[in-house]
Parts: sequence; structure tokens; C-alpha cells
Amino acid sequence: MGKLLRINMTNNTVTFEELPEKYRLLGGRALTSSVVADEVPPLCHPLGPNNKLVVAPGLLAGSIAPSSGRISVGGKSPLTGGIKESNAGGLPGQKLGKLGIRAVVVEGKPEKNKAYILKIDAAGAELIPADDFKNKGMYETNELLWERFGKVGILGIGPAGEMGLLNAGISCNDMENGPGRYAGRGGLGAVMGSKGLKAIVVDDTDAPGFKVANKELFDKGRKALADALKNHAVTGEALPTFGTAVLINIMNEAGGLPTRNFREGRFEGASKISGETINEWSKTRGGKVGHPCHPGCVIRCSNVVAHPDGSPHVAPLEYESDWALGANCGIDDLDKIAELNRICNDAGIDTIEAGCTLAVAMEGGLADFGDGDRAIELLNEVAMGSPLGRILGNGTEFTAKAFGVSRVPVVKGQSMPAYEPRAVKGIGVTYATSTMGADHTAGYTIAPEILAVGGELDPLDAAGKGDLARAFQATTMFIDSTGYCLFIAFAILDIPEGFQGMVDTMNAVLGTEWTADDVYAQGLEWLKRERMFNEAAGFTKEDDRIPEFMLEEKLPPHNTTWDVSEAVLDSVHDYSDTGDEGDEVAG
Amino acid sequence: MGKLLRINMTNNTVTFEELPEKYRLLGGRALTSSVVADEVPPLCHPLGPNNKLVVAPGLLAGSIAPSSGRISVGGKSPLTGGIKESNAGGLPGQKLGKLGIRAVVVEGKPEKNKAYILKIDAAGAELIPADDFKNKGMYETNELLWERFGKVGILGIGPAGEMGLLNAGISCNDMENGPGRYAGRGGLGAVMGSKGLKAIVVDDTDAPGFKVANKELFDKGRKALADALKNHAVTGEALPTFGTAVLINIMNEAGGLPTRNFREGRFEGASKISGETINEWSKTRGGKVGHPCHPGCVIRCSNVVAHPDGSPHVAPLEYESDWALGANCGIDDLDKIAELNRICNDAGIDTIEAGCTLAVAMEGGLADFGDGDRAIELLNEVAMGSPLGRILGNGTEFTAKAFGVSRVPVVKGQSMPAYEPRAVKGIGVTYATSTMGADHTAGYTIAPEILAVGGELDPLDAAGKGDLARAFQATTMFIDSTGYCLFIAFAILDIPEGFQGMVDTMNAVLGTEWTADDVYAQGLEWLKRERMFNEAAGFTKEDDRIPEFMLEEKLPPHNTTWDVSEAVLDSVHDYSDTGDEGDEVAG
Repeated sequence: MGKLLRINMTNNTVTFEELPEKYRLLGGRALTSSVVADEVPPLCHPLGPNNKLVVAPGLLAGSIAPSSGRISVGGKSPLTGGIKESNAGGLPGQKLGKLGIRAVVVEGKPEKNKAYILKIDAAGAELIPADDFKNKGMYETNELLWERFGKVGILGIGPAGEMGLLNAGISCNDMENGPGRYAGRGGLGAVMGSKGLKAIVVDDTDAPGFKVANKELFDKGRKALADALKNHAVTGEALPTFGTAVLINIMNEAGGLPTRNFREGRFEGASKISGETINEWSKTRGGKVGHPCHPGCVIRCSNVVAHPDGSPHVAPLEYESDWALGANCGIDDLDKIAELNRICNDAGIDTIEAGCTLAVAMEGGLADFGDGDRAIELLNEVAMGSPLGRILGNGTEFTAKAFGVSRVPVVKGQSMPAYEPRAVKGIGVTYATSTMGADHTAGYTIAPEILAVGGELDPLDAAGKGDLARAFQATTMFIDSTGYCLFIAFAILDIPEGFQGMVDTMNAVLGTEWTADDVYAQGLEWLKRERMFNEAAGFTKEDDRIPEFMLEEKLPPHNTTWDVSEAVLDSVHDYSDTGDEGDEVAG
Repeated sequence: MGKLLRINMTNNTVTFEELPEKYRLLGGRALTSSVVADEVPPLCHPLGPNNKLVVAPGLLAGSIAPSSGRISVGGKSPLTGGIKESNAGGLPGQKLGKLGIRAVVVEGKPEKNKAYILKIDAAGAELIPADDFKNKGMYETNELLWERFGKVGILGIGPAGEMGLLNAGISCNDMENGPGRYAGRGGLGAVMGSKGLKAIVVDDTDAPGFKVANKELFDKGRKALADALKNHAVTGEALPTFGTAVLINIMNEAGGLPTRNFREGRFEGASKISGETINEWSKTRGGKVGHPCHPGCVIRCSNVVAHPDGSPHVAPLEYESDWALGANCGIDDLDKIAELNRICNDAGIDTIEAGCTLAVAMEGGLADFGDGDRAIELLNEVAMGSPLGRILGNGTEFTAKAFGVSRVPVVKGQSMPAYEPRAVKGIGVTYATSTMGADHTAGYTIAPEILAVGGELDPLDAAGKGDLARAFQATTMFIDSTGYCLFIAFAILDIPEGFQGMVDTMNAVLGTEWTADDVYAQGLEWLKRERMFNEAAGFTKEDDRIPEFMLEEKLPPHNTTWDVSEAVLDSVHDYSDTGDEGDEVAG
């Protein structure tokens, strides 16, 4: 059934346990959140000894199912104060899956000023003192670890995580480019830093490999899913050709591309930073598009962005980073944006939060909107650990408080991603009501609201967006637990055979007989565990709100305000009338 | 019945309104909190246009009742996110009272980068552009305003308030020494700064004077209270002789003087910073003890601390400041402590929060405990507005997040004052459950737990401390509304005639027939308004908790942890079984 690897950083012990029966059906986010809900005191200090860092590959990670190698990291978030799961692609998920390790639970807290590397391989696991890695950027860290251990999977933190900064993420590496795949959101890098863990190194040499109970069903399912992914216009064409930044022009056209700290919904420089431009630009410079983040990905939405001389600059440059460090800061120069992204990867911080932070800093007078050189200077402060760097490295809300800015686009302390709630109401409901704080990946209603995937809805219309957001959040919870990339949703929302393929692969591995309905039901049950943790941590419906300024300021070009009622927001996770009673949650 | 003066900073309008009937019986904190509860959206940004700054003199301020000149300032707190009332002595309360102004409500928000002075006198009120006062320290501000307007009462902010820093307070002046009387807690100076108000100047020349309906009853009451204050050992002897810092040796002896960021309960340097030492020291240097903070105070607990050459250094140096900037930072040099206090007064920040901030910064490695010179350097950064200064000026929790410190002695984001909850359980219950965040003045159970005033209870024993804290919080709410200094509590808890004197003076002014029982009942009713605001702002019982580290770390010398149960904490404001139903609150 797989193992749970428990690391106690107070005592420096490493223990393999049988995965408890209650976790048998859980992987990825369902597992990290269940362990956090079961083992972490909701009121603990996020950087104290009682918080835990939980790493769990998705259930199918390490298998040959298409695009199934995601890994989840969980804990109590230093940024939001609530439960947090952040997931990433790259190598570590597949390698842990092949080693039969379902979760790594890191607990306790070491003596001050110690640093360790946790090495996991087929022979076991050990903690290796690593004070010589202190304060190293994530690029150098990755390189040194590859020199020492071969091309292993690495979960690591940069200086931001070591300093305990609230926007510190956890890097996952891919085979070619080192860091860049980030479990970035919510400050889990600071939790890892507080445990004295600089990196987790995963070597799957001689691993037993991924076990499938019902191979026939599994093969049928994975093929159906792979076909759907290849045949859908988004996963088969748009994403491989232009990468995720294909959304820049689409969102700009929709008037929902947040610009200059969420002052406007359209950016005059959008075409200069679009996926189409990145694609053209890569051809002239030797960059790459259609790049996979881990072996076996059939979507291959990623890219490598090159310097003018053709040498790699950063990989990948994704839509969210491109927007956050670009449009939201008024910056339309891709070289500057790529450099900002590289700085984030090296210091070990989330690009969405970093871009929103820079925009708030610009609003607070630290730079002019559009000044990429000054933005680079500012962001370089983070790894230096200067007082200014510590402010910026603590994220948007923190920076706003430091510089007296009251327009702060966050929910539960976490910055909004690249979709304006005033222009796309459903995603705003997800931002407001997600257990995670503002998070597009928690319930990506952009699919029907903007992309005409899984239906077609008016983004400006508030009607029905509560139910929509709930359905997406529950289904997403399920997908986040499978190891599948969330992007499979584009295909399976439109192609029922693909959806069934996803379910079949899970049933083939778990021995369950789940149907499509169970996807929603299971997702909702797991989601409730996250909600219960947050309630015990002191969250209320007042935390499920969009910031005040969006209720008052009209967003150009549609000149709309946030107008989804509080009653609708409160209905999203009100399970009192649905028969989905609280006692199910304890199950 | 008095006037309400409404200032709109968006439109620059100044309007006198009749005080609404529903506020007829309310003054000070009861009035500021009622206006905030009625007019401020609980989820508004504290520094946005929808927050309001409410200033209300206590009901008897301006009368000749003894020690009755306190003034309350209220709003939504930038520091805690909840309702806030902070009160102070000094001149402005009495002068507003004599002018018949029951409340000043400042709302809206001006164009960026404007500064104004609000001048209030017998002829009316006006907003005077004051951009030339920007970034001036509070000492210079006070001096310039006195030069221009005569010896007026001044409510003002220093650079910290102008920058919107979370620990910015509002200075009140006394007749001789300018700033030093601070409505310091909870960041209301930042709210004032966000409104573009540098100062409120109150001139009571030709004021109509304080009106008393029943002069005979009033005189009887005030005399009974004055007798009690003179005859009680604390208010008649200890406080006038040694000032509030008389508590240093007492709390040290009790093992409850928080030392070096709440690591110990006893400070080896206590005798060097005690009230007794300040008294001796003043005699040799030309400082003063037994100094009143406003005319008509019979307690006169205040002091003026002098430089070695006899010139005034800071006035006053109170117990809380002496402790926060002294023992809690491991500093035992009164000259250094006085300088730190002066810096706080000039920058416009609260000394309790500032001292706890410095201690957390020391724990985070910015200075050694006990290094007064480095502490002075650090605190000087605040007024400069450097990134480090903005971190420190945002208080303890903020600084802890900047420097990765997880031992953070705050409740609801506000720093704990000079009494260790692990050594004095009742005050810990007040810290945890007060609407204000950690605040000794919200329910000063130190009286029976340490001083044998109003009974005698074992400070280390948790039993009965929930009921005790509720009783003190409700009664305190009443006193905070009268204009009387909270220190009258020492006398009236022990001397029934003094208590009746307080009630008589209120009845004489209001025409009520309140009894001693009504003091508790009214206080509780007003307190519920504050609780309801906080609930609507998203506060839950999880916010009524003592920080995790105090549950785990044993505090020397008693080696006790925080052991009051969550059930007891939750009982303090659980009115469901008491017949004090919620509908009373709306009254």
C-alpha cells in the first residue's frame, strides 16, 4: 500500500511507517490535507515545531498515465494562516511514486542555524548535514546536488525559505533546467526552512516502480485520456504551441487581464508579452516551446526562454509569471520579465505573489509602473535579506502594510492570480471561497467563462457562479489528488471518454469502483476537511470576501465592480441543507 | 446635550450635528465604540476611506471631578483588524468637554499627500492646510502649534502615523511637556494619518464650560471620590510618590515581569529601573515626580525624567514604557530607556508595542538583549521611514514575520503589556478575551491578583479567572466612558463611598439613577457592541487565545505554563446563558 516516511527534525530521526488504512485512497492534495488536518494544531505558529510539512505525490505519479506526475506539498500556511496545498510538476513526484512513498511528513524543529538535506532512495532515507548549502540560490543548489547525486529529483528552497519569508516556495526541478517548477504558493518554503531542510533529494535508481492492480483497465483508461488530451483544441494545440501564455491575449481581449495593481483589465503592452510573441521570439533566439515539465507529459505546455545569445534564461516562463511580473507591473519587456522570473526561482519565491508585491510597491511609490530595471533591483533585495528584501519577500499584504497601501488584491492574505474578479465573476467566487486564499487553480471557472470549455457562460454575469465555483472546487480537489496535471480538465470537461479514462486509471490502481459522480462527491468530502481545519484556525465567512476596493472601484474597460452577493459566497461551502453532512467529513 | 463634530476629509467639510439621542448617555469609549459599530463597515480597510477616526472626551471631562479628563480615540484598528479604543490623559479631553463637543468623527480620505490641521474652538471648527508640518516629529509639531495657537490641547501624529505604520499612536499633550500622553495602542495614529490629519488643535478660550444638571449631587459625589483617592494607599501614596513604575519591583518580586521577550519573569536589573530608583534619581537631577497629566488630577502619578544636566528628557516615563523598553529588552540603564521613550514620543509610536518589537528584533538577531545603544539606533529608523524603520514601526507581529521569529507575545496582533500571563493568570484571560487585543487596561485583574486591591487572589491559580476577567472588563468599559482615569479603580474597589461617588457624579450630569449594579450592566452592554463589531470583522473564539509558546515553555522563576482552559476563555464573553441576550446589544 506504500509507505509514509516520517522525519523528525527535533531528534533527527527518519522512520518508515506503513501508510495508515484511512489514507489508502488518498494521494496528492487529499493526502497532504488529511495529514495536516489530523496532525497539525490549527492554531500553531506556522514556523514553530508543531507545524508539519507534508509532501505527497499524486496517486498516479510514477505511472505511465499521461501528464500524471504532479506532487503536492502541504502544511499550515505562513501566508494565509490556513491549510495549504501547493502542487508542482517536475521530477520529484514521479520518483517518489516509483519508490512507493506515498507521503513524507517532516515535523519538529532543529537547533537554530542547522541545515540538512534529506536523501531518499531505494535503500531508505537519511538526513545529511548541509550547512555549506546555506544562503545558496536555488540554481546553484540544484547544480551542486546534481553534481553530487546525479540527476535526482529535488525539492528545495532558496534563501527566502531559509529566512522564513511568507512568500517562500518550494522548487521542483525538471530534467534539463533545474529549478523552475514551484510549489510556490502560500509560503510552504518558509515551513521547510523552519524545519532546517534545504532540500529533499529523491533518487529512484533501483526503485520497485509503480504498481498497477488492474493493468487492463489502467491501459484502457490512460489511452482514452491521452486521446482526449491530444484531440482537444486547448491541450492538443493551443498549449503545446504557445504555452500557457496563450492566455495573455485572450484575457486582455476579455478585459480581465489585471494591469498595474488591478487598476485596469486591459494592458496596452499585452501583445509584446503574449504566448504568440514568446513563440516567435523563441524561434529567433533558440528558446523552446512545447517543452514537458516531466517525462510522460503529452500536453507539453512549457517553454525555455533564452537570452539574446541563445543561452537559456529561465524555464519556464508561464502565463501567471508573465502576467504578474509583466502586465500587473506595467512591464512589457520580455527580457526584463524573464529576469524577474529567474530571480524569483533563484531566491525561491512565488512569481504570482512576487508580481503582486512589486505592483503594490509601485503603488506605494518605490518604483514607477513599467520600470523593469527598478523592479529587478527591488526583487534582488529578497535574496540579500535586506530589510526591504524581507518586506518584499513577505508578499503583497505585508508590503502594502509597510508602505501604507490600501488597494491590496488578496484573499486570506494571498495574492490574486491573473484573472480579474470584476471581469470574471466565477473565478472571483473561487478566489473568495477557496480554502487556499486567492487561487485560480482551486476552481478554474475560466474554462466555461472565457474558453467555452465545459459550457459557455458570460464572465460578467454573477448568476450561477456560486454553484459553478463549488463544482469546480470539488472536482479540482479530486484531480489534485490523482497526480494528473490540472490541465487535463480542459479535455475531460468536453470529452466524456477522457473523463472516464481518468476515473478508470484511478479505479485500476485503487481497486475502487468510482464513477464520474464520485469525482465530485469525493472531492467535496476532502475539501470539507480543509474547510474544517480553517474553521478551527479561526476562519469565518468574513474571510471569504473580495477586497473592499473591488466593490467600489470600476474596472475598465467594462467598468464593472464586484457584485456577487455575500449570500452567494456563503452558499458555496454551506453544506447544511445538502445532505452532505459534517459527519461525513470525519470519515 | 452637546455636539457631534463631523469632518469629511474627502470633501473638506466641517459640520456640527446635534448628538443623536441614542448617544445621550455615552461618553469616551462607550461613545467611540458605538459610533464605530454604527458607522464603520467591519470589513473595510483600516486605512481606506470607509474607516473613521472617532474622538470622544469622557463624559465628565472638563468638569471639576477629580482625575476626570481622559479622552478616547476609536476606529477600526490597523494593528488588530478589530474595533479599537485607546485613551489618554492630557489637555484635549478637558478642553473638548468645556466646548460641549461630545465627539469628533473624521471620515473619508483626502487627495494623496495632503496634510491638514483641524482647529476647534468656541467659534467653530476649520481645516487648515498644513503641508509644512509633514514628517515633523511630535515635539517640534507641538512647539510650532503652541507658538501659533497658544497653549492649546493637541491630538497629533508623528511621522509614523503619516506613513500609516501599524504601531502609530496619537499624542495628547500636557500643559508643560508637550507630547507624551499617548492614545498609543492599536495604530489609530495611522488611521489619523490616512485621513490627512496631522493634528487636532483644541482651544477652549471663551468655551461655555462644563454643564452639571444636579450640582449638589455632583459635589457630593466628587468629594467622596476625591476622599477615597486621597485615602487609598495606592492612589494616595504609592502612585504619587513613586509613579506607576512602582510596579517594577512588585512585579519582579511576583515573578511576573516579562524579561527578554517573555523568556523570564524576573529581571536581574529591575532595581535599576524601578519607580523607587526613578524617584531618587529625579531628586539628584531635577526631574519631577508627583506630576499631574492634566489639571485637577489628584493622583498625580506622572513624572518628568531629566538629563544629567537637569534639562527635561522625557515626560512621563511610565511603568509600561520603562518595562517594555527596559526589562523586556534586557536594558537596565534609565538614560537609555528614557531616550527610547523620547524617540517613541517623537516618531509617534506606542511604547509597549515598540518595546516588544525591539525584543522580538533582538530575538531575531538584530541586536543583543541589553544593548541600549543598538536599540536606540534601531528605533531611530522608524521616523526615517527606512525599510527597517517601517518593519519596526509596524509592531511586534510584523517584525517577527520579517525576521522569522516564532515566539511572538501578541493577542489579536497586539503586544502584551508588562504582566506575564503565565505568572498572573487573570490578566492573561483579559489579554486573550479583550476586544482590544492584549491590553492590561481592558480588565486590570492585577489589582486583586498582585496588589490585594478589591480582594486577594493567587495569581498562579487559574480558578475563577474567567469570571474575574469578565467583571473587570465590564466595569472598566464603564470607567473608560466616564472620563475618570482608570486608576480610580484602586480606590473605589476598596472604598464603597468612592464607588458611590463615581456613580453619583455620573447621575448628576446625566440625570440617570444608576446604581453600582448598573456600572457592570451598562459596561457589559457597551462591551457587547465591541464584540459584535469584532465578530462581523471575522473574529472568533480562536482569536481569544494566548500564543502557543506560552502553553509549552515554562516561565522562570515559577516554571509555570499558561494553563487556563479554552472553555474558560470561551466563557468570558458567552452571554447565551445569562439572560443578557443579544437583543439588548442593539439597544
